[in-house]
Amino acid sequence: MREIIECVPNFSTSDPRVVEQILNELKTTKNTFLLDYTFDNYYNRLVISFIGDKRSIIEAMLKMAFKAVELIDMRTHKGQHPRIGAVDVVPFIPIKNVTIKDCIRIARKFGRKIAKERGVPVYLYGEAATKPERKDLDWIREGEYERLEELMAKPERKPDFGPAKPHPTAGATITGARKVMAGFNVNLGTSDLKIAKKIAKALHSKKGGLANVKAMAAYIPEKNITQIGMSISDFEATPLYRVFELIKLEAERYNVPVIGSEFCGMAPLKAIVDVASYYLKIDNLAVDRVLEVAIQNATEKGRKFE
Amino acid sequence: MREIIECVPNFSTSDPRVVEQILNELKTTKNTFLLDYTFDNYYNRLVISFIGDKRSIIEAMLKMAFKAVELIDMRTHKGQHPRIGAVDVVPFIPIKNVTIKDCIRIARKFGRKIAKERGVPVYLYGEAATKPERKDLDWIREGEYERLEELMAKPERKPDFGPAKPHPTAGATITGARKVMAGFNVNLGTSDLKIAKKIAKALHSKKGGLANVKAMAAYIPEKNITQIGMSISDFEATPLYRVFELIKLEAERYNVPVIGSEFCGMAPLKAIVDVASYYLKIDNLAVDRVLEVAIQNATEKGRKFE
Repeated sequence: MREIIECVPNFSTSDPRVVEQILNELKTTKNTFLLDYTFDNYYNRLVISFIGDKRSIIEAMLKMAFKAVELIDMRTHKGQHPRIGAVDVVPFIPIKNVTIKDCIRIARKFGRKIAKERGVPVYLYGEAATKPERKDLDWIREGEYERLEELMAKPERKPDFGPAKPHPTAGATITGARKVMAGFNVNLGTSDLKIAKKIAKALHSKKGGLANVKAMAAYIPEKNITQIGMSISDFEATPLYRVFELIKLEAERYNVPVIGSEFCGMAPLKAIVDVASYYLKIDNLAVDRVLEVAIQNATEKGRKFE
Repeated sequence: MREIIECVPNFSTSDPRVVEQILNELKTTKNTFLLDYTFDNYYNRLVISFIGDKRSIIEAMLKMAFKAVELIDMRTHKGQHPRIGAVDVVPFIPIKNVTIKDCIRIARKFGRKIAKERGVPVYLYGEAATKPERKDLDWIREGEYERLEELMAKPERKPDFGPAKPHPTAGATITGARKVMAGFNVNLGTSDLKIAKKIAKALHSKKGGLANVKAMAAYIPEKNITQIGMSISDFEATPLYRVFELIKLEAERYNVPVIGSEFCGMAPLKAIVDVASYYLKIDNLAVDRVLEVAIQNATEKGRKFE
């Protein structure tokens, strides 16, 4: 593909039949490729990662969003992850031969369409935000679905597209453009959500933690443990080993062991390389020292002779 | 490129003018791509990593070998890395749409040519070996260049191609086929080579250390430190974190700190992913969970819908 955009929509469902129908809309759209999808009961949330070109990415995303609006009823939705709608958040991410401006244009187009054709109010966030405070998902999600009607009535919360009140069953949708980020979850060997919340707070950038990190705590009933769920918006500036070691440090004071971690969505190569580089004490291991990357670069861009 | 073979020749030189002339032979061969090269005084050794197809890889390698035979004189060569010739060792490595058998064929062809056209005796090693003991570089390199004439006189050391005595200035050449391996060096905060040798011994597979690991100790005058230089033939079975942590453990008893490490040649992606996965306590992070790999797989092999 000449141009590549990634889209990582988050839908408020973990019902396998609904998941299947949403994925089916993607499957039937040409020039799109599914990278990954995950859903679970405790977040009650479906996260899909797929790629396409400027045209196919909007087409697929609209079809999936229409299906989600049709099938998901927010009035009965419960889950530990903050959310305001059935199609909760839809970021467009530039990967190859595409700029962040292209992605802002795509987000606006997607937002305008879902507002016009389904009556879902839409907020633009991230690089597509129309006001500084709207850059931040947390600001937009304040009060969540439950208080959406009340908060949307305030003039400063008028949506960017669509009516100034929630869609009766689908709530509201947030869309925008951002760079690749890392979704990273760390599991704690405790079922005590109070401790997990303290650790999440210690990590969160706005609460005295690490820059570029948003952290929340969740209880995972299947395993009777808790989890620090994080998004790291700039994993080059704030590498994952720093995040991980700080969690270990904060957990230690409660005698809580860190028992595992996982990527939520795809793992960016640079994030992985920086972790290996830190623990092996390699001074600044460049991504293009990775054999597979060097081979791709050499064959795509021509021989390395300067 | 439809088919990709990697070749990692080791030449016994660190003279920048010789290095340049050898690289120039590669530069002037079509359908080859330089990935990396390193050389240094203490090993007095040049390691080049390049890729090509079945045809170009032999063409480039022969041109480089002829140039090295012409310019390098082993009679005056000194260096800490064991070696028996100017073109010391030439492994061919299957990367894409090529089998190990193809690489054995290529190694034999290369060996036959350099023996016939330059009179350099050639030993086949690794997967191309003609006798079990010849699989092992160490066995072939016994006595090094200095005792080569004496040892080559023994019937069991008759070379696979060429005369049964060393080339007067270029010694002998070893060539063969192998899988991708990791070259990994760990630096110790001591100038005491005796300690470094004990640690190298503790790591070496044949001396009670880790399977798939060959380790040697070297003194690095520029930094006044010592280094454990290793090749790890199967870094999936014996991951790098295990190697690194064992060195730390062995170094501790001498109160020697591990002060850094580096890849010698390219870093295989799987080796990097396994290190990150271990330290972050991620249970079995698959290479295709890496964003860039997933994108390449999706666009090359088609969409991920099963």
